[in-house]
Amino acid sequence: MEVLVTFSPADIAEIQTPAVLIDLDVAAANIRRFQEYAESHALNVRPHIKTHKLPAIADLQIAAGAIGITCQKVSEAEAMVSGSRSIADVLITYNIVGAEKLQRLKALATRVKLSVVADSVAIVDGLSAAFREEPQPLTVLVECDTGANRCGVLTPDAATSLAAHIHKMPGLVFGGLMTYPPAGGEAAVEAFMRVAKANIEALGIEVPVITSGGSPSMMHAAEAPTTTEYRPGTYVYNDRSLVSRGACGWEDCALTVLATVVSVPAENRAIIDAGSKVLTSDLLGLTGYGHVLGRDDIAIDQLSEEHGRLISSGPIGLSVGDKIRIVPNHACVVTNMVDAVSVVGNGLLRTEAWPVTARGMVV
Amino acid sequence: MEVLVTFSPADIAEIQTPAVLIDLDVAAANIRRFQEYAESHALNVRPHIKTHKLPAIADLQIAAGAIGITCQKVSEAEAMVSGSRSIADVLITYNIVGAEKLQRLKALATRVKLSVVADSVAIVDGLSAAFREEPQPLTVLVECDTGANRCGVLTPDAATSLAAHIHKMPGLVFGGLMTYPPAGGEAAVEAFMRVAKANIEALGIEVPVITSGGSPSMMHAAEAPTTTEYRPGTYVYNDRSLVSRGACGWEDCALTVLATVVSVPAENRAIIDAGSKVLTSDLLGLTGYGHVLGRDDIAIDQLSEEHGRLISSGPIGLSVGDKIRIVPNHACVVTNMVDAVSVVGNGLLRTEAWPVTARGMVV
Repeated sequence: MEVLVTFSPADIAEIQTPAVLIDLDVAAANIRRFQEYAESHALNVRPHIKTHKLPAIADLQIAAGAIGITCQKVSEAEAMVSGSRSIADVLITYNIVGAEKLQRLKALATRVKLSVVADSVAIVDGLSAAFREEPQPLTVLVECDTGANRCGVLTPDAATSLAAHIHKMPGLVFGGLMTYPPAGGEAAVEAFMRVAKANIEALGIEVPVITSGGSPSMMHAAEAPTTTEYRPGTYVYNDRSLVSRGACGWEDCALTVLATVVSVPAENRAIIDAGSKVLTSDLLGLTGYGHVLGRDDIAIDQLSEEHGRLISSGPIGLSVGDKIRIVPNHACVVTNMVDAVSVVGNGLLRTEAWPVTARGMVV
Repeated sequence: MEVLVTFSPADIAEIQTPAVLIDLDVAAANIRRFQEYAESHALNVRPHIKTHKLPAIADLQIAAGAIGITCQKVSEAEAMVSGSRSIADVLITYNIVGAEKLQRLKALATRVKLSVVADSVAIVDGLSAAFREEPQPLTVLVECDTGANRCGVLTPDAATSLAAHIHKMPGLVFGGLMTYPPAGGEAAVEAFMRVAKANIEALGIEVPVITSGGSPSMMHAAEAPTTTEYRPGTYVYNDRSLVSRGACGWEDCALTVLATVVSVPAENRAIIDAGSKVLTSDLLGLTGYGHVLGRDDIAIDQLSEEHGRLISSGPIGLSVGDKIRIVPNHACVVTNMVDAVSVVGNGLLRTEAWPVTARGMVV
């Protein structure tokens, strides 16, 4: 059986299902593993907190050597900073738009060292208008599209122009270049960043930071040597997607979903009390909605909101009331579905329920 | 433009995005439409609250003639009953397993007229053990699988045996038959229920309720004439899935997602601030993640957690800061992603933020 030993049968018996379980010892090992890789390649680590949304785990990441955190939304950053003992440096990798959000950004900038990104003049000008009267300028990085086809300027020339624009705008300081690369995109990142950096420096503007990120290829981050900083998120928990890509094993998965069998309507079918309201519909290119630990023969082939359907090739061998543990396809989105997670490890004497502080922070 | 008029430009300008908007006037019309159909066919209506998770909307449904509500989980029912002025009758269409949940069920049974379902002797015996010493017996219906292949006994004979078992167990009263039918499954429902009902009545046991449900085919509910009660959920808001099945039009969609354009990186591509943390990854057989009101040319072809990617066949004609409204694929799961929704209509003087009372209630 692959079931991790840190949750005792007594712990499991007490937890009402469905529940999200976090093993802090596994998470700590995952944090250490990437921190060591990064330090051996002179890379700074700035974890993306979207995976755990827990200030206490950000504190563990910072204690292990991370220089700060990455958030996607202003409300996320506010919640993380308010709940943490150690977060003093935040990068929001998002174009901030709108008067209320800019107002909140200004307030946040008085509490921590804050950076944001921009990929257009419109965004930069909004940031400048908000910060031009502030005592401290805001650090702004240019987001670059190195193949993910989401946000970001499309060419090194466009990055150079936007960097020059940031550099000249009041209230702002140019902070460097940021990208969210496609998986395995180290060569594309390096090709883009080397040219953009050289062009910007040729204008007499420093490029202090080149930040990239993404857990799938994090152990190849150093293959883009221009990169100074890396922002993995999922690596702290891992998930079925990362196992399927060969990035880790089941034993490295710190987040599991505990579910109870509520029906065994046919010999090869069982229904559990975890559906898309916990596991979510994220497939990430996989078939099925998670891996049942210790049961390679079972597929979770269908979810509705409160039901998960388990199918086995043979007799499923489960009874009503049995509890199973599932590694979900995508850990980050599962964290966002529950108000609290059940935590063990890291010296805790017993399972604790930790509120997911930055859950549901979308604005 | 299909954009609904009840949200004024001033309302829209004030709402921080992404946000979930609810138009109560549209919802009220949807409630009335099905209530009238049901009454004209002598069907009771017991709406499934998973779609709105709002006691105030349950109150509207009951005021329009619904006999009570349907919930899936005990925690959901507790939250709805606590928040409502009018909920006095609750059916939990779920196999309840586990000591803590049975304890909560007993407490809930002292507050409202409560029914649950069961599809196995194991579930029935757990319910009986919990309720045998209670002053009032618990009403238990047999869940029947009429083609959805989820929970439920597989044959009318199995339904008959389980009904007889419920009838004889202390602390329980047999309440009838329940099914969640496949879309368009009225004939299958009728074939199953007619036989099961006749067999159970032949044992001298009454079958007071035969309850079916599901918005996709609700306007065909009367084609299974044995049915006495119907449990639609999504009908109150509607969504892209129901529009695509021809069940309603865009103008009948009471729930929309308001999003802001944060990047226009290429002529035919724009990025919005609503990703899977609001729209979810639910596809329900559709392509893309929602319909942009008034823009049939746009596909939402990719979501990450905080980004939605819009692609147009031609120039996309959007600018940073523009707001758009999206009808999501699946309204119910979107409701579950946010702590509050922005509500207009039903005589409200301006947009109000309503906490989603039963959000995230998974146990």
